[in-house]
Amino acid sequence: MSSSTAPTDRYIAATDFYVRYAETDAQGVVHHASYIVWLEEARSHYARSVGSDYADFERAGYFMSVIAVEIRYRAPARYGSRVVISCWVQALKSRTVTFGYEVRDVAENTLHATASTEHICITREGQVVAWPTDWKQKLADGLPS
Amino acid sequence: MSSSTAPTDRYIAATDFYVRYAETDAQGVVHHASYIVWLEEARSHYARSVGSDYADFERAGYFMSVIAVEIRYRAPARYGSRVVISCWVQALKSRTVTFGYEVRDVAENTLHATASTEHICITREGQVVAWPTDWKQKLADGLPS
Amino acid sequence: MSSSTAPTDRYIAATDFYVRYAETDAQGVVHHASYIVWLEEARSHYARSVGSDYADFERAGYFMSVIAVEIRYRAPARYGSRVVISCWVQALKSRTVTFGYEVRDVAENTLHATASTEHICITREGQVVAWPTDWKQKLADGLPS
Amino acid sequence: MSSSTAPTDRYIAATDFYVRYAETDAQGVVHHASYIVWLEEARSHYARSVGSDYADFERAGYFMSVIAVEIRYRAPARYGSRVVISCWVQALKSRTVTFGYEVRDVAENTLHATASTEHICITREGQVVAWPTDWKQKLADGLPS
Repeated sequence: MSSSTAPTDRYIAATDFYVRYAETDAQGVVHHASYIVWLEEARSHYARSVGSDYADFERAGYFMSVIAVEIRYRAPARYGSRVVISCWVQALKSRTVTFGYEVRDVAENTLHATASTEHICITREGQVVAWPTDWKQKLADGLPS
Repeated sequence: MSSSTAPTDRYIAATDFYVRYAETDAQGVVHHASYIVWLEEARSHYARSVGSDYADFERAGYFMSVIAVEIRYRAPARYGSRVVISCWVQALKSRTVTFGYEVRDVAENTLHATASTEHICITREGQVVAWPTDWKQKLADGLPS
Repeated sequence: MSSSTAPTDRYIAATDFYVRYAETDAQGVVHHASYIVWLEEARSHYARSVGSDYADFERAGYFMSVIAVEIRYRAPARYGSRVVISCWVQALKSRTVTFGYEVRDVAENTLHATASTEHICITREGQVVAWPTDWKQKLADGLPS
Repeated sequence: MSSSTAPTDRYIAATDFYVRYAETDAQGVVHHASYIVWLEEARSHYARSVGSDYADFERAGYFMSVIAVEIRYRAPARYGSRVVISCWVQALKSRTVTFGYEVRDVAENTLHATASTEHICITREGQVVAWPTDWKQKLADGLPS
């Protein structure tokens, strides 16, 4: 067990699920690329938990593009475990948003990984634009007031 | 909506989850290989739902090896949907087991895919063996009495 | 080593590559879903080898949609191996095409898997249509004359 | 086109391959997690290009564990392209090694991504150990003399 690396001054959305066998590799642990997919699912859950849906975002003609990922692996996760991903808004600017994450084991509370991802908003034509007002507000609502 | 393709005379384990964005492809729908991972997760859930855990199976020195997959895609699934996978024991022999599956949309009940997978039991050394008694019983329990 | 399961009366496109570590699972072998991705890459290679490019197909507004996959796993593949996928047109109809495949180890010639996949042609709007003439011809060229 | 971000004072191993369709997502571009798998394949290629094989490393009882990934996405890659991953040793310590990477389009030379990954050596029992002498030497050989 290890103490939290998540901030305590803002909204945290946590989603949990079982490790899938396909996510493991020949080292017998979860492959490091599988975590990147988990972070994305945690963002999807974040949006749903605040009453938005990223699918609607795309239907409105916008795409949230990942421009950077930083992840630090602390302890291996294994098939048979249930993991919980905490996700929060780390920083918000007019054209970028950074999410922070913590990946833990549900049963043991082991810290598997900490991460951050940075995003921009682009249109269907690939033009970088400012966040649409309603999404900007939802993201801002997650920050300390 | 479409009527069920699942049998009504045996145990069905159903697990549901959101489509992950990483599971889509450039056609804008869920990539066909992602379904294979979903079927596996449905088998994992089947085992957990009858009080077993495939992780224990491997810790006991056995591996359930996939020897065949047949899948028919009926209608594309998309990000933003929640899907439910029904899984049942289709046939059980001393050295093989066949699972049947149905993949549907939770909200619309659309049938996305039907599938079956066949498996054998192997030891750590790769030798094909009969199912361990307790697992054989759990699998047999799912069949019509 | 095992004798060929591929037909000898038609065009065969073979592509080979190293097993990627991410394609393995905790059993220490290539995960069964990874093969499905390999079959797709073999189809991509088939198209390129006959002077077409599936990317152009999509740019022209068509999509080749997978409607069925059948695969039989014969012997596990492992990281460190180089595999070769042979791919051929198994059957061609006005609205469907079936590809056949054989997955082998390059060094040992071990047969890892045999498979077939069935496809339809759809438009961007999801309508099922006959194969565009030039693609129909390319596919027909691969069959026995 | 963009000028190189790779160092000019050390060994660079470059491997190239076609983008796989399964690596794309509903935005029509390569999914950001697919790049992480590419970086790993570039490391595999690095080892092979200097006469080592990571498969042998594991057979000798060692595992190279990823402890950190940093990646910056510069321009989207698409199906139909061939990409080349350049990989080099960025830093080497007794217990860690950092690789640097550049992902480019073969035809256009577009810079898709730059990245680094950090690794430790662990035994089958999960103990962190110093690099085995022969591997340490191979890694050191890639650095400026």
